[in-house]
Amino acid sequence: MKKLILASSSPRRRELLGQIGLEFEIRTADVDEHVAASSPEELVRKLSHLKASAIRPEAGEAPVTVLGADTIVAVDGTVLGKPADPEDAKRMLRLLQGRSHEVYTGVTLLSYLTDGSCTCNTFAEETKVFFAPMTEAEIETYVATGDPLDKAGAYGIQGFCARYITHIEGDYNNVVGLPVGRVYRELKKERAWDAEF
Amino acid sequence: MKKLILASSSPRRRELLGQIGLEFEIRTADVDEHVAASSPEELVRKLSHLKASAIRPEAGEAPVTVLGADTIVAVDGTVLGKPADPEDAKRMLRLLQGRSHEVYTGVTLLSYLTDGSCTCNTFAEETKVFFAPMTEAEIETYVATGDPLDKAGAYGIQGFCARYITHIEGDYNNVVGLPVGRVYRELKKERAWDAEF
Repeated sequence: MKKLILASSSPRRRELLGQIGLEFEIRTADVDEHVAASSPEELVRKLSHLKASAIRPEAGEAPVTVLGADTIVAVDGTVLGKPADPEDAKRMLRLLQGRSHEVYTGVTLLSYLTDGSCTCNTFAEETKVFFAPMTEAEIETYVATGDPLDKAGAYGIQGFCARYITHIEGDYNNVVGLPVGRVYRELKKERAWDAEF
Repeated sequence: MKKLILASSSPRRRELLGQIGLEFEIRTADVDEHVAASSPEELVRKLSHLKASAIRPEAGEAPVTVLGADTIVAVDGTVLGKPADPEDAKRMLRLLQGRSHEVYTGVTLLSYLTDGSCTCNTFAEETKVFFAPMTEAEIETYVATGDPLDKAGAYGIQGFCARYITHIEGDYNNVVGLPVGRVYRELKKERAWDAEF
């Protein structure tokens, strides 16, 4: 089986990729995340490509695929990253409560082949998430748990915040940080033409 | 805070209810799950009520709410329970692959008050789940993991099978076994009129 490298330090992405039974290594590098983009989809595609291309396979390591990913929350076209502090987290939750928003994860698969060539597959998945209304007291309580502080859009769908999410349209794991269903299907497509897989 | 009793031995339901920060006790009783129903929604509502009403609070324990739940998978109106054996699991997965189906969780909240009265709140949540096509080899591999054998419809959305799920419409946790968003909102409504909560 062709080697897979996850270019992300996120424990949630590691867990998701492991959950579907794929073997992989983790390698990360610092990247400058300031990029220009005309849409949230373009932004996460570009960021995922930056992360994947920052990892260079070693000599003789091909065939190997490097997976980079980036997740953002968008509400009315405005991108919400990780909150700066608890006040910023409350501001974001006030924007999200009582309505729907979009979560985008961009994924780039860079496949290095034995003949020295490299193919690039970049895509973005969108999931719509619907929040129930939240009172100020509920926002305070949730921010006090600490859960929002390290997450894009100031919430984690897989934790305490599940009490405020009414439903979603799309891939749940995409909101957690990696659309593993799509990743699996794209890797399977590569297998079809790559005799070395 | 009014006491909450989860009338289910499912580790997944326990985890979901704990995740949203509610305190509760677990108490279970055997119930005869053979009931007649004209639809999947009616079936899970009835089963959840059977499970909740099988638990009788002790004297002086009111106010207390007992939560019963039941989850089933339905495809073209046919209900899929837990598979009898690996062959049965493969049969179910062949039905589900490459299309959508519905997952229903019925929930009953029986609230016993200090004046001896009891209120009953029963509802069913529906989530549509979309499977990618699966080859016979993929079905074999998944059944060999053992994951399908203790699950309604022969799959667990939160495990290995995530690689075959393209998207959902509805509450993800409803598919895992308990729609905790809806449960939280219903409990909150009860608080509004129950001064003892």
